[in-house]
Amino acid sequence: MDRLKKQIEFLLEADKMKNLYRQTYVINDESRGDSMREFEGEQEKYKRRENDAEHSFHLALFVIMLAEHSKEKIDVLHTVKMVLIHDIVEIDAGDTYCYDQQGYTTKTDRETKAADRLFGLLPDDQKQEYIKLWQEFEERKTPEAKFAAAVDRLQPMLLNATKNGISWQEHEIKYEQVYQRNEHIKEGSEQLWEYIKKILDNAHQNGILK
Amino acid sequence: MDRLKKQIEFLLEADKMKNLYRQTYVINDESRGDSMREFEGEQEKYKRRENDAEHSFHLALFVIMLAEHSKEKIDVLHTVKMVLIHDIVEIDAGDTYCYDQQGYTTKTDRETKAADRLFGLLPDDQKQEYIKLWQEFEERKTPEAKFAAAVDRLQPMLLNATKNGISWQEHEIKYEQVYQRNEHIKEGSEQLWEYIKKILDNAHQNGILK
Repeated sequence: MDRLKKQIEFLLEADKMKNLYRQTYVINDESRGDSMREFEGEQEKYKRRENDAEHSFHLALFVIMLAEHSKEKIDVLHTVKMVLIHDIVEIDAGDTYCYDQQGYTTKTDRETKAADRLFGLLPDDQKQEYIKLWQEFEERKTPEAKFAAAVDRLQPMLLNATKNGISWQEHEIKYEQVYQRNEHIKEGSEQLWEYIKKILDNAHQNGILK
Repeated sequence: MDRLKKQIEFLLEADKMKNLYRQTYVINDESRGDSMREFEGEQEKYKRRENDAEHSFHLALFVIMLAEHSKEKIDVLHTVKMVLIHDIVEIDAGDTYCYDQQGYTTKTDRETKAADRLFGLLPDDQKQEYIKLWQEFEERKTPEAKFAAAVDRLQPMLLNATKNGISWQEHEIKYEQVYQRNEHIKEGSEQLWEYIKKILDNAHQNGILK
């Protein structure tokens, strides 16, 4: 029972992921579950960013549906676990936008502390397991980590391209930056990289990505 | 490439899960990623319901962290896949509140049609796989389906108990109803049922569950 209590404490702490918003916008945002204030007819203007829980859900779905496209054979459960927990450190460390070079200088330090506290809520064996899994994701060396990193980049680009490049424009992100920052997708999956390259080229030609 | 295109189409359709709100409230709701309207100082009143994407994320995390408490040995990946896709039918069929007896009379019919259209976006082998998986969840007969059903009930009760029973009060749900509706948790996990029984008894004693 003590073990279960610790696990539940961790799971309730993870609820905070639902409150951590990323730079990406969700595609469908007509309603927002806000019980106190209904949205009053500015639908076209209204847009909502995606939170870490939604992002992690979407990635897990990407992994189970697209695993066959991985460059190397992967353990699907291991990869799903990785994407489910990869952003939990942001509860303490905050989201670092993937084109924020300054944020990246302190990212490792902030996130290592966060991993220690957050996974430290779990029983010790699980703490060790999940810190290791999170580090594996960050190092991007194993087939599972490479594929997880690939879908972690693919998903926001797909959302963003579908929403007419809105986050790219807000942050004045250029085609070359997107290309360079995401080229590592091909280490996880050549097919996914080929697919997203076409989408980026289209976005560039349509002017939604300068 | 045609196969990948179908899979991506399904994954983008699944984005709609982020826009389907349930009766349960998230525990942490201070901000909402709404770029057009910032929240203006009514923090105590403001509350936000959980959407299907967040719920499914949370369930997947429950499964990987709590699998050891399953009554029977389970295939964890199979169970995670099940909870990730179990609510996708709500994109077409809508959410049926678990205490809505009338809604339940048409639920199966609505959801079967939805499963056919939504999983039908996938390549045919995946369509068959996921319709079968969704049916397995609904029938609640295999060890994986029983455990998935247990966490699917445990998670909203934990959120609700943490939020002072807010959804129970809104819908005037009574202790006996909650008890009966959730007793099947013990078929998936006796330990989880013991745990939640204590929480329900506490909620009953504190008056947040009548």
